[in-house]
Amino acid sequence: MTNTFEPLDSGTVPRFAGLPTFMRLPVAEPSQVDIAIIGVPFDLGTTNRAGTRHGPRELRNQSSLMRRVHHVTGLSPYDRARVADCGDVIIDPFDLMRSLDIIAAHYEGVRAAGALPLTAGGDHLISLPILRGLAKDGPVGLIQFDAHSDTYDTFFNGSRYTHGTPFRRAIEEGLVDPKRFVQIGLRGAISNASNYDYARDMGVRIIFIEEFMARGIEDVMAEARAIVGAAPTYVTFDIDGIDPSQAPGTGTPEIGGFSTREAQAMVRRLDGLDIIGADLVEVAPPFDPSGLTALTGATIMFELLCVLAGVVAKKGAR
Amino acid sequence: MTNTFEPLDSGTVPRFAGLPTFMRLPVAEPSQVDIAIIGVPFDLGTTNRAGTRHGPRELRNQSSLMRRVHHVTGLSPYDRARVADCGDVIIDPFDLMRSLDIIAAHYEGVRAAGALPLTAGGDHLISLPILRGLAKDGPVGLIQFDAHSDTYDTFFNGSRYTHGTPFRRAIEEGLVDPKRFVQIGLRGAISNASNYDYARDMGVRIIFIEEFMARGIEDVMAEARAIVGAAPTYVTFDIDGIDPSQAPGTGTPEIGGFSTREAQAMVRRLDGLDIIGADLVEVAPPFDPSGLTALTGATIMFELLCVLAGVVAKKGAR
Amino acid sequence: MTNTFEPLDSGTVPRFAGLPTFMRLPVAEPSQVDIAIIGVPFDLGTTNRAGTRHGPRELRNQSSLMRRVHHVTGLSPYDRARVADCGDVIIDPFDLMRSLDIIAAHYEGVRAAGALPLTAGGDHLISLPILRGLAKDGPVGLIQFDAHSDTYDTFFNGSRYTHGTPFRRAIEEGLVDPKRFVQIGLRGAISNASNYDYARDMGVRIIFIEEFMARGIEDVMAEARAIVGAAPTYVTFDIDGIDPSQAPGTGTPEIGGFSTREAQAMVRRLDGLDIIGADLVEVAPPFDPSGLTALTGATIMFELLCVLAGVVAKKGAR
Amino acid sequence: MTNTFEPLDSGTVPRFAGLPTFMRLPVAEPSQVDIAIIGVPFDLGTTNRAGTRHGPRELRNQSSLMRRVHHVTGLSPYDRARVADCGDVIIDPFDLMRSLDIIAAHYEGVRAAGALPLTAGGDHLISLPILRGLAKDGPVGLIQFDAHSDTYDTFFNGSRYTHGTPFRRAIEEGLVDPKRFVQIGLRGAISNASNYDYARDMGVRIIFIEEFMARGIEDVMAEARAIVGAAPTYVTFDIDGIDPSQAPGTGTPEIGGFSTREAQAMVRRLDGLDIIGADLVEVAPPFDPSGLTALTGATIMFELLCVLAGVVAKKGAR
Amino acid sequence: MTNTFEPLDSGTVPRFAGLPTFMRLPVAEPSQVDIAIIGVPFDLGTTNRAGTRHGPRELRNQSSLMRRVHHVTGLSPYDRARVADCGDVIIDPFDLMRSLDIIAAHYEGVRAAGALPLTAGGDHLISLPILRGLAKDGPVGLIQFDAHSDTYDTFFNGSRYTHGTPFRRAIEEGLVDPKRFVQIGLRGAISNASNYDYARDMGVRIIFIEEFMARGIEDVMAEARAIVGAAPTYVTFDIDGIDPSQAPGTGTPEIGGFSTREAQAMVRRLDGLDIIGADLVEVAPPFDPSGLTALTGATIMFELLCVLAGVVAKKGAR
Amino acid sequence: MTNTFEPLDSGTVPRFAGLPTFMRLPVAEPSQVDIAIIGVPFDLGTTNRAGTRHGPRELRNQSSLMRRVHHVTGLSPYDRARVADCGDVIIDPFDLMRSLDIIAAHYEGVRAAGALPLTAGGDHLISLPILRGLAKDGPVGLIQFDAHSDTYDTFFNGSRYTHGTPFRRAIEEGLVDPKRFVQIGLRGAISNASNYDYARDMGVRIIFIEEFMARGIEDVMAEARAIVGAAPTYVTFDIDGIDPSQAPGTGTPEIGGFSTREAQAMVRRLDGLDIIGADLVEVAPPFDPSGLTALTGATIMFELLCVLAGVVAKKGAR
Repeated sequence: MTNTFEPLDSGTVPRFAGLPTFMRLPVAEPSQVDIAIIGVPFDLGTTNRAGTRHGPRELRNQSSLMRRVHHVTGLSPYDRARVADCGDVIIDPFDLMRSLDIIAAHYEGVRAAGALPLTAGGDHLISLPILRGLAKDGPVGLIQFDAHSDTYDTFFNGSRYTHGTPFRRAIEEGLVDPKRFVQIGLRGAISNASNYDYARDMGVRIIFIEEFMARGIEDVMAEARAIVGAAPTYVTFDIDGIDPSQAPGTGTPEIGGFSTREAQAMVRRLDGLDIIGADLVEVAPPFDPSGLTALTGATIMFELLCVLAGVVAKKGAR
Repeated sequence: MTNTFEPLDSGTVPRFAGLPTFMRLPVAEPSQVDIAIIGVPFDLGTTNRAGTRHGPRELRNQSSLMRRVHHVTGLSPYDRARVADCGDVIIDPFDLMRSLDIIAAHYEGVRAAGALPLTAGGDHLISLPILRGLAKDGPVGLIQFDAHSDTYDTFFNGSRYTHGTPFRRAIEEGLVDPKRFVQIGLRGAISNASNYDYARDMGVRIIFIEEFMARGIEDVMAEARAIVGAAPTYVTFDIDGIDPSQAPGTGTPEIGGFSTREAQAMVRRLDGLDIIGADLVEVAPPFDPSGLTALTGATIMFELLCVLAGVVAKKGAR
Repeated sequence: MTNTFEPLDSGTVPRFAGLPTFMRLPVAEPSQVDIAIIGVPFDLGTTNRAGTRHGPRELRNQSSLMRRVHHVTGLSPYDRARVADCGDVIIDPFDLMRSLDIIAAHYEGVRAAGALPLTAGGDHLISLPILRGLAKDGPVGLIQFDAHSDTYDTFFNGSRYTHGTPFRRAIEEGLVDPKRFVQIGLRGAISNASNYDYARDMGVRIIFIEEFMARGIEDVMAEARAIVGAAPTYVTFDIDGIDPSQAPGTGTPEIGGFSTREAQAMVRRLDGLDIIGADLVEVAPPFDPSGLTALTGATIMFELLCVLAGVVAKKGAR
Repeated sequence: MTNTFEPLDSGTVPRFAGLPTFMRLPVAEPSQVDIAIIGVPFDLGTTNRAGTRHGPRELRNQSSLMRRVHHVTGLSPYDRARVADCGDVIIDPFDLMRSLDIIAAHYEGVRAAGALPLTAGGDHLISLPILRGLAKDGPVGLIQFDAHSDTYDTFFNGSRYTHGTPFRRAIEEGLVDPKRFVQIGLRGAISNASNYDYARDMGVRIIFIEEFMARGIEDVMAEARAIVGAAPTYVTFDIDGIDPSQAPGTGTPEIGGFSTREAQAMVRRLDGLDIIGADLVEVAPPFDPSGLTALTGATIMFELLCVLAGVVAKKGAR
Repeated sequence: MTNTFEPLDSGTVPRFAGLPTFMRLPVAEPSQVDIAIIGVPFDLGTTNRAGTRHGPRELRNQSSLMRRVHHVTGLSPYDRARVADCGDVIIDPFDLMRSLDIIAAHYEGVRAAGALPLTAGGDHLISLPILRGLAKDGPVGLIQFDAHSDTYDTFFNGSRYTHGTPFRRAIEEGLVDPKRFVQIGLRGAISNASNYDYARDMGVRIIFIEEFMARGIEDVMAEARAIVGAAPTYVTFDIDGIDPSQAPGTGTPEIGGFSTREAQAMVRRLDGLDIIGADLVEVAPPFDPSGLTALTGATIMFELLCVLAGVVAKKGAR
Repeated sequence: MTNTFEPLDSGTVPRFAGLPTFMRLPVAEPSQVDIAIIGVPFDLGTTNRAGTRHGPRELRNQSSLMRRVHHVTGLSPYDRARVADCGDVIIDPFDLMRSLDIIAAHYEGVRAAGALPLTAGGDHLISLPILRGLAKDGPVGLIQFDAHSDTYDTFFNGSRYTHGTPFRRAIEEGLVDPKRFVQIGLRGAISNASNYDYARDMGVRIIFIEEFMARGIEDVMAEARAIVGAAPTYVTFDIDGIDPSQAPGTGTPEIGGFSTREAQAMVRRLDGLDIIGADLVEVAPPFDPSGLTALTGATIMFELLCVLAGVVAKKGAR
């Protein structure tokens, strides 16, 4: 294993110096690495407060505070896998449908290059084209940390592609197996009593925050692991799953969410699953003046990176 | 049940569009509705940092993010009661005593119109004239969520009407039955060791945050319900009861408060009581640049609204 | 002249009380008034930093500080014309082209109702559908205060409808007479040396900020008045024409702009022209934490309102 | 001349160290000094956005950036007069009228002690009790830098003591000679066309910002000096006279104001007048997150201090 | 016991009035008091984001919200000990090593004067010279609340004195007994897997946040008390031990920290130990626009003060 | 002339996408380009409020808004010279003197590579080592835009290397010819009346802001050009020369500064001089929450870049 793909050493190069790449990593192509960190600066699917188009940049900025070795496992993802900042997908800010195609094609390329993608959004609609790019061998499992189900049908005169609808489309398109799909942390009032019907009818397992509080992390994550099983699984983490005191900078905040301690513990329990990619979405810097949301997001990305590095280590790096 | 009094549909009218009425509801008179949401932009009772005069406006603004149906009960308050934004009480910013009279008269009118009031403050002194307007049939019970007791006698050369004194006056005036009065969440240093003596001597039950942490939500709320019993009860929620990380924009923040998850769970356990009105006070927008405090306040107002709608449903709408 | 359409009296109702309508005016239909103040919460034309969808709300909020009588003329627009807040145009946040049609139809209705529209944007693309709604009797004159020409052809793979292109489309569609079109305050680097060629070739008069500084307000405005003459003329004011120290909350700030003193003086010199409508665009509240941009915008709207009231007074109110 | 009353040396004690007294001066009693810098943390006269009660503290905080010697004159006020931080007047936040009496008595004491007061407000109503304390030998002249006239009669049901009325009261009470009273920088819409009538009828000279722009600093200040002449004169500087881009943190901002360069130049031209005291009012820190308003205010206070030191030097220090 | 050293009474002097000394206490010399509250505005040891030099000032500012009597014990520290604001240590912002000597000498003087020091930092490196000044009778015990171990060896070309190294130096210098040293709350990725080796090899007990969550406050604090035992012990509280949602304003935030409720409970469990001094460090106001971090810090300082007052009461005040 | 070194096209790649290099340029080595844009994240010379170590990153971030072609000249610097982002100088945050050596060596290398450096600071002390690296052929001329002279001798116990002393050292070391040295915009109180004596005695021409206001841009710049003449000249632009309303984020703000319009006009008048390098210093992002200071700084850097490109064009690119 080479260590060309190491973060800058913060004892040699101060954290405030240099270009803010993800985790202070080198810039490279997906074909050069085992794990490709990718930005998708897209917020055309947002129904209310836009701004996640600026997410990747600020996540990169705050990720300068990340370090190398996980303090619980004592392992460094950079010892287990080659990791790099693979840049942003260049979307078209005036064409939602074309942007979805661009994203899907990009991730198809990442998959073809053999890298596992770790994505910084962007609004939650981006998970749909990412799944289109990755789920080429049949429906995958999905673990979603979120305040919202994002399985609505349409908004505003029949718009089918918004950040409230990606997972309905993903099920309809055969990208996700609804029986292997679990949503954790949902909460907040809904527009209609029937809003969860589709997901439930399809077999998606919804774990509301109230159930989560009652059962605890271990129990919930054991069930989540059982639901997705050993088959290929994607992980999507909407920052609004976390409480807005710890992640205020998002378009649709809901009070009463996960704490970051809970979030970190849950992500760590993904270890050993066959994760084919992960994303961290809905960080909206214009509503995050302190940068705390992006710091939280960057740290969750580091936790996801450690899980992905475990997948690489298990399968053997290329 | 008519549904004239419905919030704007966020799938048709974007949340950022239109006048920011409470919960995006129509404007109406108390006589037209079962539940009247009312603003009281008053902060003349504030001892240190003023600003709650701007509370109703910002609570309205953030309430645009609220939806229709409670995700735990599956019920919509708008299906159970007619609800509207009934405007602000027009106080006199240069005459505290006259303003108290204006507020009291206003709520006497709301009561006469047969509507249950849900109020957005304003500082905590407003609960006194609200109670003067509502408690016409004898002392009522009171459930107070708060960091402070607000049962001091006087401040500054004998001022008897401040946001630190309303509930002492309310007991003295026979508006509140101290034996049916419970305060939950109190904490923080006090000016004198005797500060809680009056409340305790009168029989008020004080549950400090430490006791709350030790016993848990279920146990504390069971006791609170027992204290107020089946008789008419008012509910007052001071936003500073919630931890300042989740509600920083308030005049007298105290660290170590409720989480919003705890607050939501407690409010939900008010269901079935004979609530005659409720208020959410002490949101101070000048100290809330991110809007998080107003978002938290608006969400707590939605929870209180659901409880009040349950009262209406039980008694039968007019 | 009735004075039903008066702002709330700030000596009776405090400025912080009540719903934040434009200028604290009543809500009404265009058919009831001489001047209709309208919000267009639309930012789908924005190339970089979105957020002007929240402009109308925050302009309403800050307009609570406006008063009745212009201190230079001693005249009140409310004595000269009936004015009301006529609400927002309900756009479709997922369909740019449909939204343009909705806006155009709305302003056609305002025109048919006989009211002069004063619009709060929204990004600058909204001027195009507004002109489509108003310029029914042939091309109109146009006075544009702005940092940018907004006469580009396309962006991103041929997008023809962005906030950088409205006035090229307006000329192409015969809505604006380029010979009666003047742009004041342009500045800042451009993408290509040819960016101004179209406008210049068509006869648009561009007055850069450097020329403005050299000649002064009186001289420049005399020329502007001569260019548009006595025929019907529309006025569009992009807040980024003003220096970002006085209007930071905008998507494409350019340093070195007008001062507000200069802006106010220029707008006052529009008096006597045949203005058929005016807009104030590009206020982006997510980038305006202090509210200063919206305050500046609301005050410019008051100045424009006084000019429009002069038009009404001259023609005779309905 | 002793130099006990010197600011801390910023080349020895860093500016960030130590208690933030005004100008980093020692704390002393008025009887010990020639010039007493005093805070009046009072905002009970505010009609809309309160917060100037926090003004003195933040003005002290930002005044740590001030230095010793004026760069234009080469003179240090501390070489010409003994100057100290004489603390705050302890007002009663629940009794406006009592507070006015406390302030008046305090300044009567300062006058009796023989010190010239330089005051940090507080809202503009404080100038009234200050004048009551100082104008014991008959009406004084008054130079007012301001966006507003503050000569209204009443607000809200007849309130005569607000920050919009102090100078009407001061004229009525014989504290200020209206013929020796000049107001500079007024602007912004007014509530009624008659708002300036009282001032004009009494002979107050109002110089609007438009006249100021047309004539320039030298001409205007020459007239102002002629108006007050050689007799005792008070100077009041409302921070809202300065443009809100340079002083956003104030309760009633008006765009289009003085620049700080103009403000500094005007204050310098007060040199040689018989100034009996000065105040800087209306800094509202809750609306000044960046601290720029307080920095501007502290710098204007330094300019006023230099003028007052000139008065001491001319009369001879005690 | 005199009560000369009492905070200002907030029912008489408003909290917004007067100089912001620590806890609104009088200014005095260490020799006059039992407990000396001292600021050390030093951040030369900071590796990334500086700013703690401004910590003491803002901690003083927010401490105006503190009151007299602890609500759990019913005791006031001011009834048990003489306490004062003893000013700042005047460091040299251009000489780290000289500043360390200045601080050490200062605390040697505090110790000689017989006062227990309660310090407001400053970055964490200040604990080293404080220990040099206090640990004159042999190594002391140490309880550290923190996200980081601060026992690194060097940074940047061998710098041995940074805020990441103080406790390694303190062990090497014989100031702290590593067997009586416990660190609570550590978390976050580390630069190298060996980062904790030195501390562990020396016998320091590290309690990560995960262990803390699993065992709870009571169990952890019982162990901590056992580790330090009855011998003299110093307490250092790094504000970054607390979750960044409650203490965002710090140079090296780590998500997933203590809640303030937990922090308060832990500090209270220090009661009865032989505490020889305590500090609260790493509050960085430039990254704390809301002031919440300083409020949290000031409240933790009040909790520490109550513990120190218990030590004084036990030993008998001087 | 190749155009490999072009900024990303904002009509193809949205401004919010991609790594924030200076001006969205490629990253390259100085030897590959004619003009090297370099960051120096250093603030160890700061006497009060640190934070300019974060300047280069935020200047890069805001420079994404820059475009290609200067609107006054119609010329693009990228058509006249090869320009790239040449990264940051890696300083040692714990060793001021070593950092000065690192910087000097770095610029010696840039000079040897034949590129003209355009630097983003960092505090003003960095100009000293830059001049050490560049002024190898004898003293150069110097044009300084600034609020402060920065020609003090020492601070704090004799510190000779601070951001208040670089140009005294530069004269002493023979790097700058004081007879060819002009300072424009100085203002603000000074610590001692003698502060300007050294500069004046050495022949430095100081143009205070008052003289600048009286004479105007043309006259002042004509004199400045005459002072430096045709010989090699360095340009240093301290952002605090600009008014704090337009550049609040700096460590030592002084009200009453240049406007950005004036600053731009002055920089443009440097055209044709033999400029050997330029810097823009003292942008402190922790005090610039809105980003306006960095936007202003990035735009001034673009103006300086255009001037440097003129030098390259005149001499012929390599």
